[in-house]
Amino acid sequence: MSHQEYCHLCAKEDGEVLYVALKWYVVLVRDGHYPGFCRVVWNEHVKEMTDLSPADRQILMEAVWQVESIVREVMKPYKINLVSLGNMIPHLHWHVIPRYQTDVQFPGAIWARPQRDINVEELDEREALLPLLREALKTRLFGHGRD
Amino acid sequence: MSHQEYCHLCAKEDGEVLYVALKWYVVLVRDGHYPGFCRVVWNEHVKEMTDLSPADRQILMEAVWQVESIVREVMKPYKINLVSLGNMIPHLHWHVIPRYQTDVQFPGAIWARPQRDINVEELDEREALLPLLREALKTRLFGHGRD
Repeated sequence: MSHQEYCHLCAKEDGEVLYVALKWYVVLVRDGHYPGFCRVVWNEHVKEMTDLSPADRQILMEAVWQVESIVREVMKPYKINLVSLGNMIPHLHWHVIPRYQTDVQFPGAIWARPQRDINVEELDEREALLPLLREALKTRLFGHGRD
Repeated sequence: MSHQEYCHLCAKEDGEVLYVALKWYVVLVRDGHYPGFCRVVWNEHVKEMTDLSPADRQILMEAVWQVESIVREVMKPYKINLVSLGNMIPHLHWHVIPRYQTDVQFPGAIWARPQRDINVEELDEREALLPLLREALKTRLFGHGRD
């Protein structure tokens, strides 16, 4: 940690940590509207993708593609949203968000104004997939750390 | 174009097209609140990153890193936001958005509720950088299309 202030991403205190590789880790985000929402976090406190070496960028994105594949397979979303903001916490992390045409903000971003009420039945169906998602992420992610 | 409906991203009718490579193109988005906002669009009508081959994913992300580097250098933002949604138009594209601590939505996503009024002077300063940004994107992007 190359900075002064406390960073909860450095501390891996972000959601439910499911897999830790040499250079990144994956958490399942606790989000009542978006079950299956995962984050891929770079282990070191780095601000921007272009602050990483080209090799490290590729290592991080390959982790994101792995998570996207597993989330697609298990959660069967209409669309995947991939987002790296870091405005509040300038520590590289990627949101991998399964989206459905009936979800609260669709087709807006999950930060946009709600379009409809929660569909509790559909949400329950998606929540029921989380044990499978957890298991797949824990057992099938592969993290290499070479430069 | 492997689909039936008209897609304005397939047609390259999206903002101001500044560079066209064999597999992707870059546009400068006309956005009154976010001067310097660029998009990197995959030429073919593909929905998800994991629908691309690993080699093509890398080609697209290398284009995103090139744009990020140039936007950082010219626009000097506090933070870069990278976003691939495609909820409305399921045709792969990456938003590369320069963010400033005084911009309208900061630290929220640009789709979130405004936090403050526009600072016209700062916006004018950023708008004034656009000729430089256009020139840099037109002359310095490098697009390869090999698999």
